[in-house]
Order: sequence, then C-alpha cells, then structure tokens
Amino acid sequence: MPTFHDVMMAYKATRPYVHETPVIASNSIQQFSGHEVALKCENLQRTGSYNLRGGMNFVIRTKLLDLSINHFVAQSTGNLGLAVALAASSFSATGHIVIPKRANDVVVHSIAHYSGKVYRCGDARDEQMKLTQKLVSDNNNTSKKNGVNACVFVHPQDDWLIAGYGTLGVELMLQTDGRLDAVVVPASEGALLAGVALAVKGMKPNVAVFAAECDARDPNSDFEDGPVVAVNKGEGGGDQDHSTQHANNAVDVARQLRTPLNATAAKCVNKYVDGVIKVTERQKRDAFRFVYERCKLVVDDSAATAVAAVLTRPASLSQYDHIGIVLAGGNVDLDDIPRLARL
Amino acid sequence: MPTFHDVMMAYKATRPYVHETPVIASNSIQQFSGHEVALKCENLQRTGSYNLRGGMNFVIRTKLLDLSINHFVAQSTGNLGLAVALAASSFSATGHIVIPKRANDVVVHSIAHYSGKVYRCGDARDEQMKLTQKLVSDNNNTSKKNGVNACVFVHPQDDWLIAGYGTLGVELMLQTDGRLDAVVVPASEGALLAGVALAVKGMKPNVAVFAAECDARDPNSDFEDGPVVAVNKGEGGGDQDHSTQHANNAVDVARQLRTPLNATAAKCVNKYVDGVIKVTERQKRDAFRFVYERCKLVVDDSAATAVAAVLTRPASLSQYDHIGIVLAGGNVDLDDIPRLARL
Repeated sequence: MPTFHDVMMAYKATRPYVHETPVIASNSIQQFSGHEVALKCENLQRTGSYNLRGGMNFVIRTKLLDLSINHFVAQSTGNLGLAVALAASSFSATGHIVIPKRANDVVVHSIAHYSGKVYRCGDARDEQMKLTQKLVSDNNNTSKKNGVNACVFVHPQDDWLIAGYGTLGVELMLQTDGRLDAVVVPASEGALLAGVALAVKGMKPNVAVFAAECDARDPNSDFEDGPVVAVNKGEGGGDQDHSTQHANNAVDVARQLRTPLNATAAKCVNKYVDGVIKVTERQKRDAFRFVYERCKLVVDDSAATAVAAVLTRPASLSQYDHIGIVLAGGNVDLDDIPRLARL
Repeated sequence: MPTFHDVMMAYKATRPYVHETPVIASNSIQQFSGHEVALKCENLQRTGSYNLRGGMNFVIRTKLLDLSINHFVAQSTGNLGLAVALAASSFSATGHIVIPKRANDVVVHSIAHYSGKVYRCGDARDEQMKLTQKLVSDNNNTSKKNGVNACVFVHPQDDWLIAGYGTLGVELMLQTDGRLDAVVVPASEGALLAGVALAVKGMKPNVAVFAAECDARDPNSDFEDGPVVAVNKGEGGGDQDHSTQHANNAVDVARQLRTPLNATAAKCVNKYVDGVIKVTERQKRDAFRFVYERCKLVVDDSAATAVAAVLTRPASLSQYDHIGIVLAGGNVDLDDIPRLARL
C-alpha cells in the first residue's frame, strides 16, 4: 500500500510535468447545497484528466529503478491511455496503448498526438489481455539489455498511480489553506479515490472523505478493461492501530463500491474513506448540466457524479461546512454534450 | 472619457462583489499559435461574463452620488441584463431589464433569479426605446424624493461600465506579473475593449492591445438593442500628447470595428488600441471547439473570437511572446453547443 511519504515524493517529482490546477469557488453550488464548495479543476489538467499525475509518477519511479525501461503498456479507452502516452514521451520512452474497438477515433488521434502507439483490438477482455501480454514480452525480447526488462505494464490500480493521484489532494489542501472539512471524490476506477483519500488524511487527519458513485455503471469507465482483483474483505481490519469497530466500518466502505478494487486500492479505501454517496443517473445528468451552465466548465461523467453527490444534499454531508469536490476530468466529445445532460 | 484612476477606483470598490477570475495557461494554444498564452477566464465570473464588473461599478458609483437612486434600467438580451440585475440587488435596488422577444427563456429565468424585473417587448428598436423611457420616467415619478431622480438608464457604453470592465485588465496584469507583451480582447460591444485597453496600458504602457472581431455580425450581441452614437472621426486626433501619425493610426482602429461606438468608447479605443484582428466565421467556430475540447472551458461567441485571433497566427502578433486572451463570457445554451462549433 502506498504511504503518505510516497504521495509527497510524487508531489515533488511530478511538479515540473503537471499543471497545478485551479480551485474554483462556486456560489451556485453553495446556494443549492448549503455548503461552501471548492471545485478542484482536474479537467484543466494536461490531457484533460487527473490520470496524468499518476502516469507521470509511474514513469518517473520506473525510470528511477532503471533508466533502460523505455516501454510502457496500458489498456485504456481514454484518460489513462492519454496520460501514459504523454508521460512516457516526456522521458523519451514509448507508451503502447491497447484500445478496444468501441473507443472513438478522437481518443486514438489524441494518443497519437502525444506520441503514443495505438493498438486496436476487439472488445473482448481475453483478446485485450493477450495483446497486452504479447506487447510486453515482444518489447522485452527485442530491447532487453543485460537481462533487464525494458517494458512494463501499467496496472490501472498500481501503487505508483495511486500515489500520483494523491498529489491532487495535496494541492487541494494547500490551495484551500487546510480549510476543508470534507472532500468528495468520484469512485471512478478506485485508484483516484484511494490516492486522494490517502493524501488529504495525511495532511489533515480529521477531514472526511466520501466516494461519489452513480447507481448505473459508467459506460465510459476504463476500468473494466484492466485486470482486477476482488476485494480482500479481511485485510481492512488487519491494522492494529485501528479499533475493530473502525475496521468493520472501513471494510463496508470498499464493499459498497460498484468498482472492483485490487488488494491495495481496497486497503487504502478501507482505511481512509468515510462513506459512499450514491446518486441516480438523473441526478448525475442534472449535475452535468449544472456544471456546464453555472460553472462554465467542461467535465466528464465522473466529475458530474461528484457534484451530484453534493447537490443532492445527503444527510452524511450535513455536518460539513467546507467541501472540496474533485472534478476528475473533462474529456467529453463536444457533439455528445446535449445528450449527456438528458436522461 | 474614463481615466486609469477611474479603473483603479473601480478595482477597489468592486472587489468584494466580483470574483478574481483565474488565469489559465494553455499548452495547446501555445503549441498551435507559437505564443505563450494566458487565458483570462471571465466566463468563470459571477453571472458568467465580464459584464458584472461594469454593472457593479455603475451601481456603486451611482449610489455614491445619491443613495436614493434605487432603480436601474437596462436593455439587454443577456449578459448586461444579468449583471445589472445582480449588481442592483446587491445594493437592495431593483434592476429593470428590457428584453426583446427573441431572447430565450433561460435569460429571463436567470434575470429573475438575480431578483431583476423582466420586461419583454418586440424586437423593434423603437419599441424597446419607448418602453425603456417609460420605465425610467415611471420610476422617477413614483419614487422621486426631493426632486432627485431615483432611476437611471445603464447605457451599454457608459463610462462607469468601461472603468468597471477595466478591472479585468488590472487583474490580468497583476496575475501575470506584468509579463504580457500583448493582450487580445474581443471587440464585442466596444466597452470591454475600451476598458481593458485603458487598464493594461495604464499599468504597462508598452503592452500592445488588439481587438478581435469576426467578419460576420455576432447575432447574440447585446449592442444593437442599445442606443448608439456614430464614431466621431475627428476626436481621436485631438490629444496633444500624441503625434499626428499616432492619432491617424488610432482613428483608423475605431473605424475598422464593425460595432458602432459612442464618443467615449471610440476615444478610448482610438487612444489605446493598437489594431484589429479579423477572423472568419469558420475560424471562430473552430476556436470554439478548440476551447471546449482542449481547454475544457465553456465560452461564448466573443471569447471564441479572441482565441481564433491568436490561433490564426496573424502577422500583427508575430513579434509578441506572451499574449493574454480575454475569455469574455460563457453564457451559452448547452443544447446549442454542437451547432455553435459547426459552420
């Protein structure tokens, strides 16, 4: 499991390569929700999402281990692929991105724009895994030096990604002068949630962290394409510095999420996330429209979910005055926008 | 004509009521244009446009003259109406907004949301002027105190609006540590251009200011609804501290603009604006899509025009390294977005 120290190392290492994204106050959301709200605009990050922070950290840490590792393979329908492509090319390495057929051409062009190599394949999971494994072993065979592997696979819930995503939480706390008493993060693929929770609790242990999730499965989620491990239900209670009560609570949090988490991400979530706020598809779409029309920001599905979680005024948030909301990304096809705002 | 001192007074007076809007660097625009670019995000201003700065200054200055003035009448299809409604209600006064039929219902609802009173009337200019005059005189008759007029008309190119809009330029220069050597402002209704030019030249006299304008008439422009005065061609050359050469140049600038300017705005533009960059309708729409897809910001027509002026790499900008672009506003109907990005 990554530690707060890993997050701070990632913060220091990735700073030259990522934007410090702005935090924007929203009077409209405050008016509707009753909370003072700070929007952490990761949609304004390079490549349009938080993923770059993780991708950058992954490449930097890998390079620190061995400079000769020059190939990074990822499976993604979008954001993670973009991030790995740009991160790899920033260090003269190559990002190999396996993309299922159903992903649209805009993604393919963008990945190519960031000097990534695109490998399209069928939508079946097996086919993608096979292609990925082939890419990893091919690149190891052809560019092996002194028996060192020159190619690595970027697992979507990798520890270094989680630590990299955490840098978003560090920035958010610094930019709000530690004023926040709760942070709402889209559950998304789990790694963002785990990273931000780890980071903000590391900076201010009594801040509450909530995961926002939509009842319906997010069709744009990258996650289903990556290999996942079921939640290890027993592990959350293993920490001896936590009472059994807390451990039980924590295990419940990870189980409430729809996204399957690997052991590390689940452990992070269990230890640091206080609860899950569920929203309906309609609430998410209303929030999407709200952010466009009131906040003038282009955001994606998961960011809208986090905003919806606050706008619906759930009881679990009622005791908090200053809430940070993570706008995870903004990669949305412009032509789809009206459709995304309607049920 | 407003002075730099007026702008600084407006800056001080309006600060508690307006957002300091973020300045965002754009790698993508830099890549395409070859300039380092700072986007001044007035689309993130309250009410969604720069107009609030002017409206607020107008109400504050009016109140300083006479606290008993409690009614503000404006003609607008959108942004100015929203701004006057919110500014008036911030000081327990009433904004009366005359709106032509063709304006959409979203605007009407928003104005009502900011406690403004909406008066719909025909699209004919005469009808609007008549209704406006009636509103002004009615409110003066009913609430006159000691012979003092209690109601004023907010002319879209009023000096106090211009000074208020200038505060945007002050912020921009402060936020960029005076690094900018050129600023591109949408010509829009003239007052924004005049105000920003006045402000940035006040802070750094050798910064260049360019007006961006689309060849086709902006159909959403408020201006055609307001009373305008033709450009007084002689006036620009009257300043004795300018050489005849410069004066002649200056007069040309105001004449190049499609928007009719009143005497003050024209004088400001003539004195402080260095040139006009024209873009085509298609370039504007491409820029619109660019800002959505790359910068994840919801912007309106005039903001897209300013971005287009930089993306088209005109010769007049070639000598400048650091360019500020004013994203004037973001009030766009979400359902219209795909249409606005296409020719």
